[in-house]
Amino acid sequence: MARLPVPAEFDRLRVVLVATRNPLNIGAAARAMSNFGFAHLRVVNPYEIAFREARSAVGAPALLANAQEFTSVAEAVADCQLVTGTTDARQREAQHPLHTLKDGVQLIREQLASGPVALLFGSEKRGLANEDLSHCHWLLRISTREEHSSMNLGQAVAICLYELARDSGTALRPPEQEQATAGELERITTVLLDTLRASGYLKPNAAAPTEEKIRRMVRRFKLSATDAEVVLGMLRQILWKLTSTK
Amino acid sequence: MARLPVPAEFDRLRVVLVATRNPLNIGAAARAMSNFGFAHLRVVNPYEIAFREARSAVGAPALLANAQEFTSVAEAVADCQLVTGTTDARQREAQHPLHTLKDGVQLIREQLASGPVALLFGSEKRGLANEDLSHCHWLLRISTREEHSSMNLGQAVAICLYELARDSGTALRPPEQEQATAGELERITTVLLDTLRASGYLKPNAAAPTEEKIRRMVRRFKLSATDAEVVLGMLRQILWKLTSTK
Repeated sequence: MARLPVPAEFDRLRVVLVATRNPLNIGAAARAMSNFGFAHLRVVNPYEIAFREARSAVGAPALLANAQEFTSVAEAVADCQLVTGTTDARQREAQHPLHTLKDGVQLIREQLASGPVALLFGSEKRGLANEDLSHCHWLLRISTREEHSSMNLGQAVAICLYELARDSGTALRPPEQEQATAGELERITTVLLDTLRASGYLKPNAAAPTEEKIRRMVRRFKLSATDAEVVLGMLRQILWKLTSTK
Repeated sequence: MARLPVPAEFDRLRVVLVATRNPLNIGAAARAMSNFGFAHLRVVNPYEIAFREARSAVGAPALLANAQEFTSVAEAVADCQLVTGTTDARQREAQHPLHTLKDGVQLIREQLASGPVALLFGSEKRGLANEDLSHCHWLLRISTREEHSSMNLGQAVAICLYELARDSGTALRPPEQEQATAGELERITTVLLDTLRASGYLKPNAAAPTEEKIRRMVRRFKLSATDAEVVLGMLRQILWKLTSTK
């Protein structure tokens, strides 16, 4: 079964968590990175204990052990050709171009084709500080309700990475199954009509329009070849029972 | 700046958490719902303490206080015309159509235009059980890396709701006919099972997997509300005849 193919350029993204407080959020960010195929986590001034706890958590992905620690945003993004930050409505950043996640991700992917890109996430309480933001070329924001725009950090990271990976995937197993043939459907219709007559649901000499209604209904069920066989088996057994016990 | 407009049909989505263990995940699901404009949370057999803790957490959104609690998936989805579940690669569900999140969300949005839809999430450890899955019309999966497909529950909920809200500005095409509710489909399933037992097609104490197979098959027929009523009437008459002529 086809799974998410990880494009080579994903290796050029650096997810940068700035001043994160909660170890669970560091862990959640790392897990989402692993889910979507991003390997490079950088942390800037995390709460020391939070970072240690996250690293030692059961099931922590390997990329957490390899996370790089920095004491300033400037150092953490030094090798990147594009630096982007996430923000929510509470922050008014008139100086920064602001993109929706959908549009911003397009720009990030274009840049990833040629060089490293940083995607910054601020602390749970305050988001990115003005100093952090000043390192960003532009900002992106996940569209949320006006009344509740503050997102959980781990969820925000997951959504951004999902959007980055969203159109790199291909089709999964197609949902359509082999359909029953008209002949199979007609056999079902015939046995169903016999069963309905034997049960008294239909009068023995029911008018043609009633039969046609039932024929059309059987077609509406869009039966697969496999299901058609099962249904026919059920109906035959029911019909046999109805007629044999009289 | 434009914010997320919440379409009226979002009020028809029921997010259903089945057997959730961790209060933080219930809280995270509720928060993402509030971010993206979904109000109706249902929980099925949550760990009692988890649910109580999540409800009493600081900053818990109002929708958590209004969450409805159920003891079975059947009850939790009874009023829904479409029941969908989330899965990952660990589960092999050959019987269920499987959609990518992107495609599945389109189908959910089309159905939301006319009636209620359930979106099920399983427990952190095991996902949805086979019995839970048997209530689903189809499944959707977030494309992830082959090597790490298991997602954090709160992040999976957030990504699904983000995708639902992502293009909420675009027009929808309503489905042709009003679909049967899950409650109606379950009534059909029950009478069908009784009929199959009465006819000898099923042993009186048929194993649960057989019942689940039949439940899934009934969902695959995509019954309209009108057809569901007709089918139920047929089955009731057949069952009556089978049991009264013995």
